[in-house]
Amino acid sequence: MNARRQAVRDQILRTAADLFRERGYRASTLDDIARRLGMSKASLYGYFRAKDEMLAAISRETIEGFTRELGLVLRSSLSPEDKLRRVVRQHVRFVIANRSFLTVFFSEEASLPARFARQLAAQKDRYDKGVESIVVEGVRRGVFRDVPPRLVVFGLLGMLNWLYKWYNPAGRWGAEEVSGAFLALVEDGLHRRAPRGQALTGKIRRLKRELQSVERALDA
Amino acid sequence: MNARRQAVRDQILRTAADLFRERGYRASTLDDIARRLGMSKASLYGYFRAKDEMLAAISRETIEGFTRELGLVLRSSLSPEDKLRRVVRQHVRFVIANRSFLTVFFSEEASLPARFARQLAAQKDRYDKGVESIVVEGVRRGVFRDVPPRLVVFGLLGMLNWLYKWYNPAGRWGAEEVSGAFLALVEDGLHRRAPRGQALTGKIRRLKRELQSVERALDA
Repeated sequence: MNARRQAVRDQILRTAADLFRERGYRASTLDDIARRLGMSKASLYGYFRAKDEMLAAISRETIEGFTRELGLVLRSSLSPEDKLRRVVRQHVRFVIANRSFLTVFFSEEASLPARFARQLAAQKDRYDKGVESIVVEGVRRGVFRDVPPRLVVFGLLGMLNWLYKWYNPAGRWGAEEVSGAFLALVEDGLHRRAPRGQALTGKIRRLKRELQSVERALDA
Repeated sequence: MNARRQAVRDQILRTAADLFRERGYRASTLDDIARRLGMSKASLYGYFRAKDEMLAAISRETIEGFTRELGLVLRSSLSPEDKLRRVVRQHVRFVIANRSFLTVFFSEEASLPARFARQLAAQKDRYDKGVESIVVEGVRRGVFRDVPPRLVVFGLLGMLNWLYKWYNPAGRWGAEEVSGAFLALVEDGLHRRAPRGQALTGKIRRLKRELQSVERALDA
């Protein structure tokens, strides 16, 4: 596909996804999409013959986007902590940048042809398993706590995917703030543990002072 | 409404929600619902005149269920940590027990009449703010780390709500395992911090031994 044709195709899919998100997939027609694009229906047909071809293309490109980014992380030599950090940042950026695609991706599974839906489910499952392998590696190396990795992944991906429901691009948070907060929560938890560290450090300081004074007494 | 009528109404809504989840809201008809219930369409009409009345009732009962449970927690004298723990456990149990309701609740917002949709959005927002008030209280008291409370809530609710997508009642995890894992993740984080605690404890043990030997030397 040449670059111009590819650009038009991308534009069609973005416009279709926006419309599906706003009005719902079933309520949107090819006419609506052509009208919003300022394109004749005949030209549109040169790219997609039917609405469900667009839906399938949106779903395919979404899962392929996720899979491609995850693949780079998995093949890297980063530590499990850095891999997970990278996955969270990428996932947040991807959902924010492709909100319409994601809305369609998560809401219209029931509208996909059965064979394609099965294929998509298998690709999603591979993505989940890829993220899970990072958690498993972290637990094995003793850097992650031993929480069932599958539940960690479902919890984490829920946190990340849910963004498509609430994220407002005109709101106060950018991708970096969102992933920063999510990482703080998932890596270190909400419970403040400084007191324990501080208490122990204080105890050590007191013991050292005591030791010094006893040593001085001995020297004297 | 008498108890028998209430029971029939509940049964109708559960059946409708199951059907909406399986086939999609738009693809389901009143005839399908009556057939699955083994009820005449005339009797069904005695409860609901139209499909969108069912959708509205399902959505209303879902948000009211969440709100009622959260209200009990907010009015309790529990600590912020225990309040949040209670909310997570309740939310997980509620989503698992009402999977069909939740699927309809989260997927069919676009099908609701505009006025009702606005009302529902306001109720959801109150729920979010209620959970947020727990986080804010915990941060103020210094028991929770200072992560933006609104982002904590969106992250946490994403984790919890996403359950409706993946939870399989025939699978290996019950509500307790799921909320246990999510709480472990959100309260203490995935990063193992034991090494630091262990290192400090070891240091204290060595200092104490040193102190004792010096004291014995002094006594001698």
